[in-house]
Amino acid sequence: MTGSLAIVGLGPGPAQWIAPEASAALEAASDIVGYQPYLDRVIERASQRRHGSENRVEISRARHALAMAAEGRRVAVVSGGDPGVFAMAAAIFEAIEAGEPCWRALDVTVIPGISAMQAAAARLGAPLGQDFCAISLSDNLKAWDIVERRLRAAADGDFVIALFNPASKARPEKIYRAFSLLRGCKAPTIPVAFARAIGRPDERIVLTTLGEADPAIADMSTLILVGSSETRFIDRPGGSPWLLTPRSYGAGR
Amino acid sequence: MTGSLAIVGLGPGPAQWIAPEASAALEAASDIVGYQPYLDRVIERASQRRHGSENRVEISRARHALAMAAEGRRVAVVSGGDPGVFAMAAAIFEAIEAGEPCWRALDVTVIPGISAMQAAAARLGAPLGQDFCAISLSDNLKAWDIVERRLRAAADGDFVIALFNPASKARPEKIYRAFSLLRGCKAPTIPVAFARAIGRPDERIVLTTLGEADPAIADMSTLILVGSSETRFIDRPGGSPWLLTPRSYGAGR
Repeated sequence: MTGSLAIVGLGPGPAQWIAPEASAALEAASDIVGYQPYLDRVIERASQRRHGSENRVEISRARHALAMAAEGRRVAVVSGGDPGVFAMAAAIFEAIEAGEPCWRALDVTVIPGISAMQAAAARLGAPLGQDFCAISLSDNLKAWDIVERRLRAAADGDFVIALFNPASKARPEKIYRAFSLLRGCKAPTIPVAFARAIGRPDERIVLTTLGEADPAIADMSTLILVGSSETRFIDRPGGSPWLLTPRSYGAGR
Repeated sequence: MTGSLAIVGLGPGPAQWIAPEASAALEAASDIVGYQPYLDRVIERASQRRHGSENRVEISRARHALAMAAEGRRVAVVSGGDPGVFAMAAAIFEAIEAGEPCWRALDVTVIPGISAMQAAAARLGAPLGQDFCAISLSDNLKAWDIVERRLRAAADGDFVIALFNPASKARPEKIYRAFSLLRGCKAPTIPVAFARAIGRPDERIVLTTLGEADPAIADMSTLILVGSSETRFIDRPGGSPWLLTPRSYGAGR
C-alpha cells in the first residue's frame, strides 16, 4: 500500500460548492485530518479514522498528516474555501520543506475549492470584474508593516481589495488601522461590502461605502471587499443593489 | 413562468472541478448561452436550446441572454473558470446597468467556479500561500498605462502576481513589456510558472525564474504566476519541484 495525501478544499460551506474531485478524495481516504468545524462538514464513514484538531495548530496537523501518509495511509486534509488561498496548502508544503526527506517522495495532491472571496463576489454581482488583490489582515505570521505596505500598494494600483481574516480577539484594533489607511488613499464614496459566512445559515451581507463603513461589524467569518475607483452599485427593485466593477477602466474620464 | 438567468462557472475544463450547483443549473436551464468552446463542454439535452457565439462579443451575448430571461426562459450563461474572475459576470451586470429597466427585476444568480489561477496553484503546490494580485494583461478595455501602474504596485507590495490573458495576436509585445517592467522591480531569482490549460489534455507547466523566463511561451490559455520575494521551489525526487509561498513573511531576515 502506497500512502498519499490530498489537501481538499471544502469551499465556504454548502455541499453544492464542493467539487466532485473533493468529494471523491474524501470518500477514498483512510484518514481525514482537519480543524474540527471543517471535519464536521464531512459525512462520517465507519471505515475511516478522523483526526480533529484545534485552530492555529496548522504545522503540527500538517506533520501528523504527512507522517500517516508516509506510513502508507491515504490521508485527506480538509480545508475551508480553497486550500491554496490562506488555508492548509502552504502549511503542508512548509512542513514538507522542513520535515523528513522521505516526505518529498509522497504523492501529494491539492484539490482546489471555491474561496470565500469568490462566494462573496458571486452573491454581490461582479465586484471582481477587474484586477484585484487578496490580503490577509492576520499578523500572526507576518509583521503589521507588510500588511500596511500591501494595503498602500493595492490602493496605489487602484485594485479591488479582498480582505481576509479581518478581525482577531488578540488584536482588535488592526481592522481600524487598515480602514484608516485606506481612507487616507481612496475616495469615501467607494463601495465596500462585508460578506459574512456566505452560503451558511448565518450568512449576512452589509453594503456600505469606505467613508461610512463600521469596521466593528467584521468578525473572523467576514470577507471584506473594498472597490476600486470604478466599482459601483446597481440599484434594483425589491433587493439590495448589485456591485459591479466593469471590465473597462477609465471609460468615463 | 418566471424567467431567470444563472451565470455558471465551468472551471478550467474537467468535470471533476464543476460544482454541483453549476451542474444543477445547467440541467434546469431551458436555454444555454456561451462562447462555443465552453458550450461544447456541456452535455447536450434534447429539451434545451443552445446559443453558441464567438469570443469577444460578451455584451451582445449578455443582452441576448437577458432578453430571453425577460421573456420567461430559464437561461444559463456558461463561463470558463469563475464567472466573477475576468469572465462573464461583469459583462452581464454591465448589460443590466445599461439595458432595459425590467432586467433589474430579473432573478440573476452567479454560480462560482474554480478559476485558472486556482487550478494552476493547486498543480504547483502552494504558490498563493500569501497575499496575491490578479491582473489581466488584456488591454482591449483598459489602457496599457493602468496595466503598468498595477504591475508596478503589485511589485511594490511584493505580492505574488497572477497574470491572466498574457498573449494576444493583436498586441504580441505586451507580455514582453510586462516582463521588462517586473524585471526592473523584482529579483531575477524569483520563481515564475507558466501554467497552460491546467486540467485539460494539453496541460503544460514550465517552471523558471523571472530572469530566465521566455515570455514567448505564453498563449491565451496560459496563466502566469510570478512569485513574491518569499516564493521558493521545493525540490523532490522524481518530479518537478513544488512552489511554495510560505504563510510567514520576513522570517529569514
